[in-house]
Amino acid sequence: MTPMNPEIENKIRASFDAQSMMTSIGAELKTVQSGNVVITSPVLEGFRQQQDFAHGGLIFTLGDSAAGYAALSVMPLDMEVMTVELKINIMAPAPASGMLIAQGKVLKPGRRLVIVASEVWCEDTDGHRVQVAALQGTMIPVNP
Amino acid sequence: MTPMNPEIENKIRASFDAQSMMTSIGAELKTVQSGNVVITSPVLEGFRQQQDFAHGGLIFTLGDSAAGYAALSVMPLDMEVMTVELKINIMAPAPASGMLIAQGKVLKPGRRLVIVASEVWCEDTDGHRVQVAALQGTMIPVNP
Amino acid sequence: MTPMNPEIENKIRASFDAQSMMTSIGAELKTVQSGNVVITSPVLEGFRQQQDFAHGGLIFTLGDSAAGYAALSVMPLDMEVMTVELKINIMAPAPASGMLIAQGKVLKPGRRLVIVASEVWCEDTDGHRVQVAALQGTMIPVNP
Amino acid sequence: MTPMNPEIENKIRASFDAQSMMTSIGAELKTVQSGNVVITSPVLEGFRQQQDFAHGGLIFTLGDSAAGYAALSVMPLDMEVMTVELKINIMAPAPASGMLIAQGKVLKPGRRLVIVASEVWCEDTDGHRVQVAALQGTMIPVNP
Repeated sequence: MTPMNPEIENKIRASFDAQSMMTSIGAELKTVQSGNVVITSPVLEGFRQQQDFAHGGLIFTLGDSAAGYAALSVMPLDMEVMTVELKINIMAPAPASGMLIAQGKVLKPGRRLVIVASEVWCEDTDGHRVQVAALQGTMIPVNP
Repeated sequence: MTPMNPEIENKIRASFDAQSMMTSIGAELKTVQSGNVVITSPVLEGFRQQQDFAHGGLIFTLGDSAAGYAALSVMPLDMEVMTVELKINIMAPAPASGMLIAQGKVLKPGRRLVIVASEVWCEDTDGHRVQVAALQGTMIPVNP
Repeated sequence: MTPMNPEIENKIRASFDAQSMMTSIGAELKTVQSGNVVITSPVLEGFRQQQDFAHGGLIFTLGDSAAGYAALSVMPLDMEVMTVELKINIMAPAPASGMLIAQGKVLKPGRRLVIVASEVWCEDTDGHRVQVAALQGTMIPVNP
Repeated sequence: MTPMNPEIENKIRASFDAQSMMTSIGAELKTVQSGNVVITSPVLEGFRQQQDFAHGGLIFTLGDSAAGYAALSVMPLDMEVMTVELKINIMAPAPASGMLIAQGKVLKPGRRLVIVASEVWCEDTDGHRVQVAALQGTMIPVNP
């Protein structure tokens, strides 16, 4: 595994802290490795659908952010990334009591585009995990 | 245009009101027609990314909900729908001062699956609109 | 509608003729307008699935090519395009007796990326058309 | 690994042989395991794009078929599957001298829908492999 440049990790952590949506949903940036990022969040009261499961928008948000920061982890220090496109398959509902775990990874780095994927899992209070979504998409490097 | 069954419109409005995430983001259900639903929201302070634009997760959430309710509008009264999968292309950033407008529509109704699309637009304070995202995906009817 | 630059149309027609797969499937380049391209093909004997309908790969091929040439139609004369990613929803089977019609269009032109969509229709011998697929994706300009 | 039911493998091999497009592109069904299918093909003269690389439609066709047969491998003996939707990210061009290898797998089996993924690789004459595409999508069980 490529060791993580601490300056890049710091940049990613600062960017995460600057995303107000990450704060609103109660997300935490757990792991930052080169090409691999893990973000978790509870299913807060304000982010559910009509049957009290996690809203699909919450699951997408986590998967998108984990994938985006995975892409950023393989970029030069002076670059940002933006989501070009992202596709989500929902695999199971995530109950309100669960903890969401999004694992983003880089499928193919690139100077012009970065191809990424994420898995989103839901862990119940007994530590049992079920995959709730798979995402695949494209990030683009941008000069901030 | 197929006239809207008022009972189905009521079901959709009740479902929308029961989604806590719609309340959190400040969304309003504007239009409910058979196969066409419009949802709007501001870009509230808590739903932005690191450069103060609307978070991609917010844009997806609106597009997903508009598409889902468009699918629900062509379903029998006793059915619900869930998102199977959805793909978003981001077309432009949405500034914090803009109003987001998500227009969901049914591309193909069906008993087993409903194919849907959404456009998300951002309207500035002068009423000028720019498309910020295009979504295409699949909803599945479920017995609640 | 933007009038078509004849040099760009010539470039597109030459590129189409150079794609051996277009010849193999019996495709014809019908319409080349700025941001809109139509390609048709029969469902030749060698391009079917196990129930004698058009293979999904044939439908994708037509939708991809129509979208790609639509993107090329809005590019400068010295550029090519390549498919970054493309998503297809299959809406109906296309019987072997049908004529496939793929309509590609540009959703958003750009210097770095072009967002595109295609519809693929199947016309029966009575001239009745059914949409068989919707595609949405991304093309990238490249220097040949 | 779940041992493969020989009747299901026979069903898959018969279906593959009945797809005229598999014959046209020179594809071979290499591996049939429960939830995992491998299909290979050369880049025949008639399936290239304008720069003599494999046409994107060929790469999609292989990825789609590998994913579809992976889904079929986890279905009851009397069922067929059809592609609902499939998304492809192209990662690298596949030169005409390469051998394409599509590995389809089941991400989540289901009675109503099966979520699938494929990787398509290109192996050069020295045995060196490069991934050329990643696909993710949905198959639906149907009664034939």
